[in-house]
Amino acid sequence: MLSRRLFARCLSSRRVFSTLNPVTDSDVTHFTRILSPSSVLSTLSPVSTPHDELDIYNTDWMGKYRGKSTTVLKPKTTEEVSEIVKWCHDKRIPIVPQGGNTGLVGGSVPLKDEVILSLANMSNVRSFDPVSGILVADAGCILQSLTDYVAPYDHIMPLDLGAKGSCQIGGNVSTNAGGLRLLRYGSLHGSVLGLEVVLPNGTILDQLTSLRKDNTGYDLKQLFIGAEGTLGVITGVSILTAPAPQASNNVILALPTFDNVVPLFKTVKRQLSEILSAFEFIDRTAYNLAVKHGQGRALSDEDVEGAECFILVETSGGRREHDEEKLADLLEHLLEADKPLINTGVLAQNPAQFSSLWALREGVTEAVSKEGKAYKYDISVPAATFKQVVDTTRDHLRSKGLLNEDAVKHVLGYGHVGDGNLHLNIVAKAYTPEIQAALEPFVYEIVASHRGSVSAEHGIGAMKTHALPYSKTEVSIALMRKIKELFDPRGIMNPGKVLE
Amino acid sequence: MLSRRLFARCLSSRRVFSTLNPVTDSDVTHFTRILSPSSVLSTLSPVSTPHDELDIYNTDWMGKYRGKSTTVLKPKTTEEVSEIVKWCHDKRIPIVPQGGNTGLVGGSVPLKDEVILSLANMSNVRSFDPVSGILVADAGCILQSLTDYVAPYDHIMPLDLGAKGSCQIGGNVSTNAGGLRLLRYGSLHGSVLGLEVVLPNGTILDQLTSLRKDNTGYDLKQLFIGAEGTLGVITGVSILTAPAPQASNNVILALPTFDNVVPLFKTVKRQLSEILSAFEFIDRTAYNLAVKHGQGRALSDEDVEGAECFILVETSGGRREHDEEKLADLLEHLLEADKPLINTGVLAQNPAQFSSLWALREGVTEAVSKEGKAYKYDISVPAATFKQVVDTTRDHLRSKGLLNEDAVKHVLGYGHVGDGNLHLNIVAKAYTPEIQAALEPFVYEIVASHRGSVSAEHGIGAMKTHALPYSKTEVSIALMRKIKELFDPRGIMNPGKVLE
Repeated sequence: MLSRRLFARCLSSRRVFSTLNPVTDSDVTHFTRILSPSSVLSTLSPVSTPHDELDIYNTDWMGKYRGKSTTVLKPKTTEEVSEIVKWCHDKRIPIVPQGGNTGLVGGSVPLKDEVILSLANMSNVRSFDPVSGILVADAGCILQSLTDYVAPYDHIMPLDLGAKGSCQIGGNVSTNAGGLRLLRYGSLHGSVLGLEVVLPNGTILDQLTSLRKDNTGYDLKQLFIGAEGTLGVITGVSILTAPAPQASNNVILALPTFDNVVPLFKTVKRQLSEILSAFEFIDRTAYNLAVKHGQGRALSDEDVEGAECFILVETSGGRREHDEEKLADLLEHLLEADKPLINTGVLAQNPAQFSSLWALREGVTEAVSKEGKAYKYDISVPAATFKQVVDTTRDHLRSKGLLNEDAVKHVLGYGHVGDGNLHLNIVAKAYTPEIQAALEPFVYEIVASHRGSVSAEHGIGAMKTHALPYSKTEVSIALMRKIKELFDPRGIMNPGKVLE
Repeated sequence: MLSRRLFARCLSSRRVFSTLNPVTDSDVTHFTRILSPSSVLSTLSPVSTPHDELDIYNTDWMGKYRGKSTTVLKPKTTEEVSEIVKWCHDKRIPIVPQGGNTGLVGGSVPLKDEVILSLANMSNVRSFDPVSGILVADAGCILQSLTDYVAPYDHIMPLDLGAKGSCQIGGNVSTNAGGLRLLRYGSLHGSVLGLEVVLPNGTILDQLTSLRKDNTGYDLKQLFIGAEGTLGVITGVSILTAPAPQASNNVILALPTFDNVVPLFKTVKRQLSEILSAFEFIDRTAYNLAVKHGQGRALSDEDVEGAECFILVETSGGRREHDEEKLADLLEHLLEADKPLINTGVLAQNPAQFSSLWALREGVTEAVSKEGKAYKYDISVPAATFKQVVDTTRDHLRSKGLLNEDAVKHVLGYGHVGDGNLHLNIVAKAYTPEIQAALEPFVYEIVASHRGSVSAEHGIGAMKTHALPYSKTEVSIALMRKIKELFDPRGIMNPGKVLE
């Protein structure tokens, strides 16, 4: 069954490319005419770049996806992007738009020999209005650079990710990146106000409005948010930044039982109200791994002993003394309750402790990769089911005889309670077909049973096209295909991604 | 020129309807078979409802738009909506979806004799999760009912409008309603999490997910937000409600000059940070009219005398004493500055005063309608240009000899500074073709010169289809047409609205 499915996938991938053409020497010659010399990398003549110089473009950062593109183009202006796309459209040459190449689902590397259109050379801020907080920037601007750009104006970007030092805003929008600030500032569908997009025929769609409100017809830009470059190339982004909070604080709480997570979330939401900016779940296994691999130790052994899981709460507000008072009152309320929801809690007393508490949460990823090979599932399910999903997966692996030191070592969960987003990690000694077969479609079926999402924030890319039906109905997928066909009838934009 | 344009509009309206059919007796017979008797109102046989019973459906609340529909259908389930739409699709009968019929641009009444599909009988809450705050409701639920429904759970709807007592959530989503809470809770593109839509061929598109995060392909639901029923009938809405603030307060500030509005906004944003929930602008003319027509008087005559305009600031936060301290500090800072941005300010001391300050701002609309006939423009322009836009319009009318007691009596502005949304009102003795011709396209050209929006929050409807090119490029409008064609190739859904 699996091999039949794989065969079908190979076939559909072949079909996608059957009407498309590879780049030729004459195409490269054309690109050298319309772009400056430093903007064209190609192993083909007349440029003849050494193959290894294209490796970083052909491979994703995890080393999991690898393409065979001969040609990387790095235009400097929207007009250059338009010229490239027009040419590729006429010649039916497939294109992969590429930002910082930090995605987790293989969306930004070629499946075969597509042209890689890198936005790295488009990295100028076009405008910033400190009154409204609206920033307009080239798609290739790195998220951290934008964060630094607005900081002197007392503003912050409405999103923050681990990859902020290399991911680009255009890529963030294309994958509809979620990240650590979603609970507070909402999704990019709300904060992106306008886009400039080069459509698959080379036409420039200018919807780069810097208006907070514009109710004039269909909100087309929304289609490109999360389309992973399959409907066009985002070249410019208008985004609403937020006033920077004046004070941030955090606390880690140890819970005797997972059952307390949801009641705790309700209590914390009510008491901290508008200053609550994160409510992160870490199960015992994840915590232990983080400590084992030196990602910090927030609590004493005794406190940890009786705990089934942990919650990291962050506040961000306008006045430190008010925020501290709210947080202290919350802790007092929690600890002095008749039936306390928590065993104990540690409040950050200074910036160093604040960072070390976050390090514990953010260090889980690194700890997992130090411990073994990880199967990572980024799913949306109701917060109340987080433990059940982890336990069911573990039990299933045990029933298959796969839960032991030579196969799966740990099954763990952590994630964003406020967003209903669970990161389910299965840590194995090695990647094996048996474990893969035990996990899929098993995990996706659990997700579907909760009407959840098989991809909460990572996107579909090349990795999850086959899993789409677990989260989207046939009617939805058929409509998505029609939209793709409407925008890109020749199928040149990032072929084989999102839709099989 | 104007008459040629009008002629072209009549022609295009005729063309829209040329392939569509009116409802016949046999259609009505069919509808009586698939719906319960109380769900079919029709002047045709075999139902034979008296004509005047259809008036409230055929006419908008302002009495400005009037259709000639013979038939109103009020289905009770999504399946019934689907059956109706399938039938109309097969028979090429045009449909106007209708919610509370409170729109301002004629989007919810027929242009001719379309079937009116009222959602009024679909008014059940389907689910509410007090942990995540996610509410799933039938499209016909009245906004106020939903506000009341979530109140006991300490949550509020993310939008609030003057029409809340009769507008429906499906209509709110269809027009992408903005309203009074947008500054704080963002637009519906961010807070609507899922939709159930009956497509123009009768197929049910179920994207009624109740997930905060779902990155699985194109976000199709976004297209229906603000499509004003031209792409399908919204039958269900999943929306993120917000934790209710524990305390609200407000203050009205008198400014010596408009030039201080923007610096004041920056100061207030910085000092009130996350508790700022409204920053409303009222110019001197608007204030005077509100006072004249008994909409409250917040300030003494002396304070008003030196003021060019007024700002209403609202806070909503989690703890009253913290919020009051922040607001008191702000006022002290403002009044004790070397060059004060304000002349004076009045802080609400109790709930009655809180309401009366809001009454002043909200009463402008009523005062305007008491004073004369109002030409209303709901536009997005940079906040710094609000006064200039009002003054330029007034000067233009004066230069045309139209600024006098027998023509235009007042030109005034008020609106949401934080959203860059100006309500420009021209109060005349009567509606006349001369005034209309002096205002349009003049006002739209001003908007276009600022790259603004000709409709910040009211939508396009039947009223502004001709003004669309002032805010959208040809490429955008062409793509909108293709989307319309893709979803509704027969053109039966709300014909003549949004797109000419």
